[in-house]
Amino acid sequence: MYNGLSRKQLIAQIKAKKSFLCVGLDTDLTKIPAHYLKSDDPIFEFNKDIINATKDYCVAYKPNLAFYECHGIKGWEALQKTIDYIPKDQFVIADAKRGDIGNTSKYYAQSFFETMNCDAVTVAPYMGHDSVLPFFEFENRWVILLAMTSNEGALDFQFLKLDHEKKQVWEKVVLKSSQWGTPENMMYVVGATRPEMLADIRKLVPDHFFLVPGVGAQGGTVEAVAKYGMNDDCGLLVNSSRGVIYAGNDENCARAAEEAAKELQEQMAAALENKGII
Amino acid sequence: MYNGLSRKQLIAQIKAKKSFLCVGLDTDLTKIPAHYLKSDDPIFEFNKDIINATKDYCVAYKPNLAFYECHGIKGWEALQKTIDYIPKDQFVIADAKRGDIGNTSKYYAQSFFETMNCDAVTVAPYMGHDSVLPFFEFENRWVILLAMTSNEGALDFQFLKLDHEKKQVWEKVVLKSSQWGTPENMMYVVGATRPEMLADIRKLVPDHFFLVPGVGAQGGTVEAVAKYGMNDDCGLLVNSSRGVIYAGNDENCARAAEEAAKELQEQMAAALENKGII
Repeated sequence: MYNGLSRKQLIAQIKAKKSFLCVGLDTDLTKIPAHYLKSDDPIFEFNKDIINATKDYCVAYKPNLAFYECHGIKGWEALQKTIDYIPKDQFVIADAKRGDIGNTSKYYAQSFFETMNCDAVTVAPYMGHDSVLPFFEFENRWVILLAMTSNEGALDFQFLKLDHEKKQVWEKVVLKSSQWGTPENMMYVVGATRPEMLADIRKLVPDHFFLVPGVGAQGGTVEAVAKYGMNDDCGLLVNSSRGVIYAGNDENCARAAEEAAKELQEQMAAALENKGII
Repeated sequence: MYNGLSRKQLIAQIKAKKSFLCVGLDTDLTKIPAHYLKSDDPIFEFNKDIINATKDYCVAYKPNLAFYECHGIKGWEALQKTIDYIPKDQFVIADAKRGDIGNTSKYYAQSFFETMNCDAVTVAPYMGHDSVLPFFEFENRWVILLAMTSNEGALDFQFLKLDHEKKQVWEKVVLKSSQWGTPENMMYVVGATRPEMLADIRKLVPDHFFLVPGVGAQGGTVEAVAKYGMNDDCGLLVNSSRGVIYAGNDENCARAAEEAAKELQEQMAAALENKGII
């Protein structure tokens, strides 16, 4: 039985690898090199090559469930094989954006932590505390709550100003939810597309880790994210999906992914040194 | 290839069956009668009996994905078999509460509408328009957006008051999102636990259907929901999960579910007659 990764273990991995890179396994049959399509399980074969090529440069993998669910049962098989293949010292995030009433969220927690053996799952906050609390019943497993996302639609509701308190919706989400969990079992999704806002959320939750998407294809940089979001324990997992896994599109794609991951890792090492963490 | 159910077809079903009941297939191995556990696929066998017993009294079925996902691949198989077994004149709702950035939501839409052949999927609004729009690219398939949910945690964020506009978050979600889709491809989740608030949301979106959970186990009544939420096309799907599927807990459970569904259907027929719809 896998026991999950604690905050302490995650920080130790970050220091050992001089990296806070999370590789997003958004594996898309229309984008992976053609030679994989001949195999029985192209998604898993591609993921395996990507994992082998990048595992020394990252501390986390984040399969996005949509890319697996769209293939039905075959997709779920590929996902489970992928998760089982990822080395146990890596932090595995199911990017699933789940959330339901309490007695239902309990089953989502069981899905991701027991059935699938992930360390963490992304959760949407709209339904409030009872949609989140059931995930905390598993030791060394994590909720990563959507706070400020990296997409255009983030502007629709997350930045609406609230009456009286002079806060925005995302701030209220962070403040309220930070009372539900602890920095040992909860992180926040904070998009890199607005890096200076990382400083605002860092003030609200100085100790929590942030999972930061939006570096690379969506325009954010490691340097800006580290400048505004890093704390004394690093406190960051920066995700790159397309920028790493589709760095190449031929038989040398694993090598290209390795180069892309290594380049990000070097930028991260510099940021960690700069902050005196390593 | 299944083509989905249009608004017109759904309304015709409601009138023909004198019912706007949705049966929630929250099938839980710890709650179904023990004799099913001997079968190879207890979830599907139970669902099959429930569907046979209730199909004349309801117009929709709503499997909640959490109850299937928690069993991994076996759970997905049971879900797919269940969806395939549901008669084609029923409206099938994947209660999945998905939502991600645009290029990811596209794959969720494909999962539920193409791979699984559902008519509708529940979607969480936090990530805004690009998390919702990709679902509208499928004709006669539906987004059911979370507006005001029936759980306790709904109070955490959905009812926060916004600055200037004097609206609450859920009102803004309804007003803004009603410009993304139409009453032909979009519904809202509105909990029955605050029935008088159905009148408020009905004013904002007079023509949209509401999917109303929270009747029965959670305390709402058909009468109150109809009083405050019904429009001239009915405009309601009222869900009961536990109240129907666990009405009995022995070998006669299907018969008990039939009775429970019939009782709700009779209340619904009265409400439809009262409004002059049938």
